[in-house]
Amino acid sequence: MSKPTPLSGFPEWLPAQRMIEQNVVERIRATFELYGYAPLETRAVEPLDQLLRKGETSKEVYVLRRLQEDPGARTDDSLGLHFDLTVPFARFVLENSGKLQFPFRRYQIQKVWRGERPQEGRYREFLQADIDVVDRDNLPFHYDTEMPLVIGDAFASLPIPKATILVNNRKVCEGFYRGLGLEDPDQVLRTVDKLDKIGPEKVAALLVETAGATDAQAAACLKLAAISTGDASFVDQVRALGVTNDLLDEGLEELVRVVDAGTEYAPGLIRAELKIARGLDYYTGTVYETQLQGYERFGSICSGGRYENLATSGNERFPGVGISIGVSRMLGLLFGHNALTISRSVPTGVVVALPAEELRPACDRIAQALRRRGISTEVAPAAAKFGKQIRFAERRGIPFVWFPGADGEPDTIKDIRSGDQVEADAATWAPPAEDLIPVVSKA
Amino acid sequence: MSKPTPLSGFPEWLPAQRMIEQNVVERIRATFELYGYAPLETRAVEPLDQLLRKGETSKEVYVLRRLQEDPGARTDDSLGLHFDLTVPFARFVLENSGKLQFPFRRYQIQKVWRGERPQEGRYREFLQADIDVVDRDNLPFHYDTEMPLVIGDAFASLPIPKATILVNNRKVCEGFYRGLGLEDPDQVLRTVDKLDKIGPEKVAALLVETAGATDAQAAACLKLAAISTGDASFVDQVRALGVTNDLLDEGLEELVRVVDAGTEYAPGLIRAELKIARGLDYYTGTVYETQLQGYERFGSICSGGRYENLATSGNERFPGVGISIGVSRMLGLLFGHNALTISRSVPTGVVVALPAEELRPACDRIAQALRRRGISTEVAPAAAKFGKQIRFAERRGIPFVWFPGADGEPDTIKDIRSGDQVEADAATWAPPAEDLIPVVSKA
Repeated sequence: MSKPTPLSGFPEWLPAQRMIEQNVVERIRATFELYGYAPLETRAVEPLDQLLRKGETSKEVYVLRRLQEDPGARTDDSLGLHFDLTVPFARFVLENSGKLQFPFRRYQIQKVWRGERPQEGRYREFLQADIDVVDRDNLPFHYDTEMPLVIGDAFASLPIPKATILVNNRKVCEGFYRGLGLEDPDQVLRTVDKLDKIGPEKVAALLVETAGATDAQAAACLKLAAISTGDASFVDQVRALGVTNDLLDEGLEELVRVVDAGTEYAPGLIRAELKIARGLDYYTGTVYETQLQGYERFGSICSGGRYENLATSGNERFPGVGISIGVSRMLGLLFGHNALTISRSVPTGVVVALPAEELRPACDRIAQALRRRGISTEVAPAAAKFGKQIRFAERRGIPFVWFPGADGEPDTIKDIRSGDQVEADAATWAPPAEDLIPVVSKA
Repeated sequence: MSKPTPLSGFPEWLPAQRMIEQNVVERIRATFELYGYAPLETRAVEPLDQLLRKGETSKEVYVLRRLQEDPGARTDDSLGLHFDLTVPFARFVLENSGKLQFPFRRYQIQKVWRGERPQEGRYREFLQADIDVVDRDNLPFHYDTEMPLVIGDAFASLPIPKATILVNNRKVCEGFYRGLGLEDPDQVLRTVDKLDKIGPEKVAALLVETAGATDAQAAACLKLAAISTGDASFVDQVRALGVTNDLLDEGLEELVRVVDAGTEYAPGLIRAELKIARGLDYYTGTVYETQLQGYERFGSICSGGRYENLATSGNERFPGVGISIGVSRMLGLLFGHNALTISRSVPTGVVVALPAEELRPACDRIAQALRRRGISTEVAPAAAKFGKQIRFAERRGIPFVWFPGADGEPDTIKDIRSGDQVEADAATWAPPAEDLIPVVSKA
């Protein structure tokens, strides 16, 4: 075969990067579990009609067919790859509602796929790490305040720049627009969502053109979107715009609770940012986005919100709230800026040098003794000159090389960074704690 | 929407099962890392021409297309979901050979997909956990002896029945068939591979019919396939069949090394079983299968082998050896027999009872103090009667409920299994070690 080349949109990390990713995922997972979220995985595929319930995303779905199937076949049970983890989770909850305990908290760390055009340079496969809570009929609002605190803890456990979670509430926007007299709040929201891309003047023009706004109404919408505070003072700024509406009041009250929880438990983490809209249709209240400081222009790396109606079937209704870390997106950014490093590119802490091929069984026994005590160990691949065996370790960043003693001499271990070499017994020797496993840190 | 139903072939575990799966994967991963295997993930898709290089598997591939694409389009760059992790790994090695250190050891734990007909009741999506070692040009044989020892260690760390790894070597079979005078050893191997399905008489008839064997040659092939020993005594049994061939000698010598390593490091783990063939085309020497004791009739739950030519491009050649645990297959079997259990269905160890909704901030502070010391904690969802809050914990198997003290009284913690309730301080209290995280064990 000819030498293969990368596929646009399908990132693959080299081993050292994958080790960083795995370390990051482990820390995120540990935080999620500290809050009592149980792990869940759903299948990669959903029936196409499930995935297309939200018309807006239909462009981005990969459809599957078995190779031996008629290529033209488009039956009702066509399957597509999931494009997020929230839609499959809602389906799972409905399907298994009789077997779950509510409120049900789960985390889910899986790949998702979007059938983007390759030329756009976007990810078509990426890893997400989600938490969600759903309850039967009604979900208390305090879970909306919990989401960003969990994420704040998870991010604080990572060697990454400080994160800011931007929060808004769709009830604030919808209530404000309705209070202004605008009849199609969804259209207004979709237009305001383009602020960062096309700027306020074009948004104002579009509001007049497509959402039936007057110039004054458009200007008010832009004033609302410009409000951004690190505490509950956004309420006064909204009130100063002179719009009154019950839904607006409800939204403001909810948003204050989220921002106040941030002030209490994680000062500096949360900002009310009233232009945040989120593209997906299913959010009905609180919405979240997250910026990494220094990487603001690359957009959100952790988003989510409250959805009242996503998991609904007949008389059963399971409102939920959730948030999703874009792991691939975040790591792609940080890798692209060489912002993360790892102390070695393999788990191995010790290479046992091989004096001669016939001594391999003895070297394997040394390795097994170290492994039994939790020390990752390899035996050298071949009985090359010791200089070459040391380079084997060096190239991978492995800190220690073990030399079996000849003729009854004691074994020795060499720290190849310092050159220090000391006697050692495989039954008792251990590396310094910081060398036991690879350490991920800011570059 | 109507209530969703399961999709045949796409298993989904309930939370307690998923917790068991995750625990099992963690232990497997820890063993792989102790041996110095570095983590790797490859994208879910490969170009279709890559996946179809081995004609036999073409029936089982899922092909992707973007929803908005012309359904009839079958361009050269069609993508399919990978059906194993070895073919993508070989492609990754060729693509990144300039950036990797050889010999390259990696593990890879990912889902794979096979476009089976739904009615066969087979898994169409399942989780595999693979290790492989590849080297440039030549890979020393000692890696073939290492594979089953790593798997033996991994399985020994799990609460599952004892495993037996069955080993054969294709050189033994091919050399024996050629020594017998049979010209199409691949066809003979494919036929002998049907032994367990159709029995020896039909295999003998097929050998005569499709592989040009005489009755005596067919009988000799069946005698070879019947050999099964827990030590190197299989060599004498093969020799007694009176066939001589250089490739046979080479294969026997290799197979002895694998079996002897088992005898030395893991007595009882490895058997030479000369009927093992493995369906996939790319194996060229050692082949492995694995049975769980008591579940032999369900077939192999861990398989692999040596492949000399899978990762080859122009002048570059990376022979490899690898083995793959069928995690979903193994857990599906054990779940089906209720053979595994977990001490609770959530990570949570403590529920903080909520005396009144306005005390939530105080309860959140207790929870945070426990979490900071690694104790998974939830606050009760609502200020219901304490009996209901205790049932919330009971239903999930959470062992402890924390009661905030009223009016300056000290807090108390109740073990809801024993009913014991004692004073406790969130800054110092810790559960017994066995209650800190959920424990997976044999049912």
